[in-house]
Amino acid sequence: MKMSKMLMPTLREVPADAEITSHQLMLRAGMIRKMASGVYNQLPMGIRVFKKIENIIREELEKKGCQEILCSGLIPAELWKESGRWDVMGAEMMRLKDRNERDFCLGPTHEEVFTDIIRQEITSYKQLPLNLYQIQVKYRDERRPRFGVMRTKTFTMKDAYSFDVDQEGLDKSYQDMFEAYTNIFARCDLDNSPVQADTGAIGGSVSAEFMVKSEVGEDEIVFCSNCDYAANMEKAVAQSSEASTEEMKELKEVHTPGVHTIEELENFFKLSADKFAKTLVYVADGKTVAVVVRGDREVNEVKVGNAIGGVVEFELANEATVEAVTNATVGFAGPIEIKADYVLIDNEVANARNLVVGANKSEYHIENANYGRDFEGTVGDFRNVTESDKCTKCGSHFEIARGVEVGHIFKLGTKYSESMGANFVDKDGKSKPIVMGCYGIGVERTAAAVIEQHHDENGIIWPLSIAPYHLVVVPVNIKKAEQMEAAEKLYAQLQSMGVEVLLDDRDERAGVKFKDSELIGIPMRITVGKDITEGKVEFKLRDQADKELISLDEIEARIKAEFEKNNVKLG
Amino acid sequence: MKMSKMLMPTLREVPADAEITSHQLMLRAGMIRKMASGVYNQLPMGIRVFKKIENIIREELEKKGCQEILCSGLIPAELWKESGRWDVMGAEMMRLKDRNERDFCLGPTHEEVFTDIIRQEITSYKQLPLNLYQIQVKYRDERRPRFGVMRTKTFTMKDAYSFDVDQEGLDKSYQDMFEAYTNIFARCDLDNSPVQADTGAIGGSVSAEFMVKSEVGEDEIVFCSNCDYAANMEKAVAQSSEASTEEMKELKEVHTPGVHTIEELENFFKLSADKFAKTLVYVADGKTVAVVVRGDREVNEVKVGNAIGGVVEFELANEATVEAVTNATVGFAGPIEIKADYVLIDNEVANARNLVVGANKSEYHIENANYGRDFEGTVGDFRNVTESDKCTKCGSHFEIARGVEVGHIFKLGTKYSESMGANFVDKDGKSKPIVMGCYGIGVERTAAAVIEQHHDENGIIWPLSIAPYHLVVVPVNIKKAEQMEAAEKLYAQLQSMGVEVLLDDRDERAGVKFKDSELIGIPMRITVGKDITEGKVEFKLRDQADKELISLDEIEARIKAEFEKNNVKLG
Repeated sequence: MKMSKMLMPTLREVPADAEITSHQLMLRAGMIRKMASGVYNQLPMGIRVFKKIENIIREELEKKGCQEILCSGLIPAELWKESGRWDVMGAEMMRLKDRNERDFCLGPTHEEVFTDIIRQEITSYKQLPLNLYQIQVKYRDERRPRFGVMRTKTFTMKDAYSFDVDQEGLDKSYQDMFEAYTNIFARCDLDNSPVQADTGAIGGSVSAEFMVKSEVGEDEIVFCSNCDYAANMEKAVAQSSEASTEEMKELKEVHTPGVHTIEELENFFKLSADKFAKTLVYVADGKTVAVVVRGDREVNEVKVGNAIGGVVEFELANEATVEAVTNATVGFAGPIEIKADYVLIDNEVANARNLVVGANKSEYHIENANYGRDFEGTVGDFRNVTESDKCTKCGSHFEIARGVEVGHIFKLGTKYSESMGANFVDKDGKSKPIVMGCYGIGVERTAAAVIEQHHDENGIIWPLSIAPYHLVVVPVNIKKAEQMEAAEKLYAQLQSMGVEVLLDDRDERAGVKFKDSELIGIPMRITVGKDITEGKVEFKLRDQADKELISLDEIEARIKAEFEKNNVKLG
Repeated sequence: MKMSKMLMPTLREVPADAEITSHQLMLRAGMIRKMASGVYNQLPMGIRVFKKIENIIREELEKKGCQEILCSGLIPAELWKESGRWDVMGAEMMRLKDRNERDFCLGPTHEEVFTDIIRQEITSYKQLPLNLYQIQVKYRDERRPRFGVMRTKTFTMKDAYSFDVDQEGLDKSYQDMFEAYTNIFARCDLDNSPVQADTGAIGGSVSAEFMVKSEVGEDEIVFCSNCDYAANMEKAVAQSSEASTEEMKELKEVHTPGVHTIEELENFFKLSADKFAKTLVYVADGKTVAVVVRGDREVNEVKVGNAIGGVVEFELANEATVEAVTNATVGFAGPIEIKADYVLIDNEVANARNLVVGANKSEYHIENANYGRDFEGTVGDFRNVTESDKCTKCGSHFEIARGVEVGHIFKLGTKYSESMGANFVDKDGKSKPIVMGCYGIGVERTAAAVIEQHHDENGIIWPLSIAPYHLVVVPVNIKKAEQMEAAEKLYAQLQSMGVEVLLDDRDERAGVKFKDSELIGIPMRITVGKDITEGKVEFKLRDQADKELISLDEIEARIKAEFEKNNVKLG
């Protein structure tokens, strides 16, 4: 492609509303443009990268015998009602009616649709296993779209679904996909870690997220410093503390006017934060939930949601609700005689002695509160782990990093096949529900994660495997005939080799052209300058500072070597 | 791909609800499955064909310098309000609100979005021309989805938009796309004709539809039997009749109890249908429109809509409205003193003398009605042409055929750039609106049209260029080791040549396998039977009855020759 003809609107300035590097660079490199909050259009430099990621996904999945299909994004409500998820998906699912007032949604995920296809076509164990995938636009009405293509209302997702006769088959399908994902992200040059994850609204028993470590990641990932345990914060298990042997002291009500926060309490009582229990009040699908954790801990809302059997709408209670539940103004909630529908007590609080808690009475706290004697509730793991927690598997300490989720795989089991009647007749002549798995990759988010890991102060540094173009030919001065002619010749020669090449034939200074090629992140650059009179050009890799002067007849071998080194097929 | 592992649900029976051949064969070959009225899922055999068509489109457009982008299908209402189309698109446009009650639609077409992208990036004539395209799912809430993928609520469309500095530039862009379309449909082996078409809701001045002649086509196409004039029925111009020189007779009211239809009138008055004028009453966006055509003609609703300045909702008036407009029961409407908001008189009626018309009085007609003397209205071309009409270009007679529209190209001009402020600064320093064109191809419909033209009683006959697989290897008996081994070897050999090959390793009779391969329409078949002991296999082309026994070492050359003959690149 000749750059003079291309829609490639690079930006010198960092766009004001782009907070993270990948978002800034995608805008600056002319890959994407925003149309509405969480809604982006993909320009030529963007779609080329996204399509390359899609093709890597295709290749790796097909190596595992997966077959591509394409389902409609417009899905009749009936299927979601069958699975029970029509009422569970909440505001994130975009819904609409057709001209006949029939309910549809825009698919945020496709378990129901794939299950529906399979139950119509599969009758016998002989037709299994199957693994079907699609690469398609998904719709999720995010409450707070942000970080460019990291969290949007519409995005491209590869979703695959496996269908097996039994758990053993599912284990194999899951392992196949685990391997395929590992290969896909490796080919995108992404340093990533699979971690245990909560199964959330998708359901199922086992699930792993493929996490790319990144400071801007929205998720916290918990790693063991010693063994291979890794989980996301939602899922990471906090080891239960040992029960305190301290003697229980007498309850004592203390007047604490204007003392609300843990920090204020620490100052007032001259005690460290772990000597307090804080009580947070939530509303979950209309029910009130009081969660009691130590003063130095954070509530893990996913664990809370799972403990009460799964929730759709979950949020901190408003002032009026807190007052109704506690009989007090906000800031004085405590576990003793609290009137919530659910009272959840974190393990650490149950095991501690003589804690300071809110008195459920305005401007008062209570000292020496003890679980069992003074208050009751469901005891469990309801908090986020910290780096001081110990691995439940090996006892070593945890490390916590931020990460971006680029892929997620689930063992679904028979959740959908049972609710929707996707059965097969097994060898033994019995009808059984198909055992399913599901597997997702976010395409644009993967590209964004690559940028987070591969950039410098000048712009993106694409791996050769997913670069929008492999190489740019830059004539230093397009008005010099010998430079332009040599550049055009090289351009044609490289194209015929199968190299995806840009010719920067714009009437701009060489410095501008270099800046653009570095911003866009083209892996290889050939500069045609005055040395062309001696048959020489400058060859530079984006990820290295060095430039080499090489003769024209070395070019082909030099480029082929780059493709080989990067394990990318030419042409 | 090994067929034993594939989701390939072929059907022996013709599905009851599939009316046309392409719909029947797409279902029977396991290409598609219906999820809801007008909503289909694409199975492996389907998506492979559709993706090949998409890739042919990409290649031909990129030869013309078009660049691929991808816009969101979820479009904020604001853009449509700017262009004025939010209120014009009617019930076909699917609308929804996000969680913040903001209005969106699902893009039925993308003029507004492309114009919005361009107005943000383009400032100077130096950046033009540009031609951008996308291949994307479109949403149109059809009143009556039908004929499988021919008319659906969601479908894949390639839409391209050209941006030029002037009309001359647009003419070139339009011509480029005309050529690209010709090449695309030729590569799909579609016998098609570009015809003049109405520009409809898209707007603009000139437009052509690429029509595939087919008995099941929903459109009527009008061809001149002599010259190159071709238009669809909506657009085809009816030549004005000569003014009658007959003397005007006196008006005469006739009691015609129970005489309503033209046929009944012919019997009653003993006159042929062309001696009557029939008056149809429509409601167009709340206004009443009376259209008067000869008794033997059909009203052309598109011409009527255009004559009154474009309409959104257009339908025949109900009984009450007819009675209000005519003061009579239905069946006695006439042009004399009719109280419609618009009265449109077809040329032929204006030029005729002494017609019988409805009296606007129940159970009465009037003889000898004459335009000018007895009734007035806007005179113009408001009827469908017939084969007895003459070409306005050369005077020869018309031929009318049915066709399927697979592509449509438009010269938009400045309709969108003016309403949305997409301007550029020209060489002369003046700000001007960008001159636009737009160009669409329906992907699944193109595949359906190919099936309509390429099938026999056994199934589909895919052209090699868009076949889901190029070749199938059929071992006659998978239990015979020498057959299975040779088939596996051939399968691997052909794959390494770049042939897309199926191995029918199913434990079925050869007859079943042959039937499936013919139903699916695989262009080449190699049967490995008992002759394999002599190193020979049977080679058959789907579109020919003959089978050849050839030796294994001839295979590669034979297959390469097929690819060359069909002008399809191998691998």
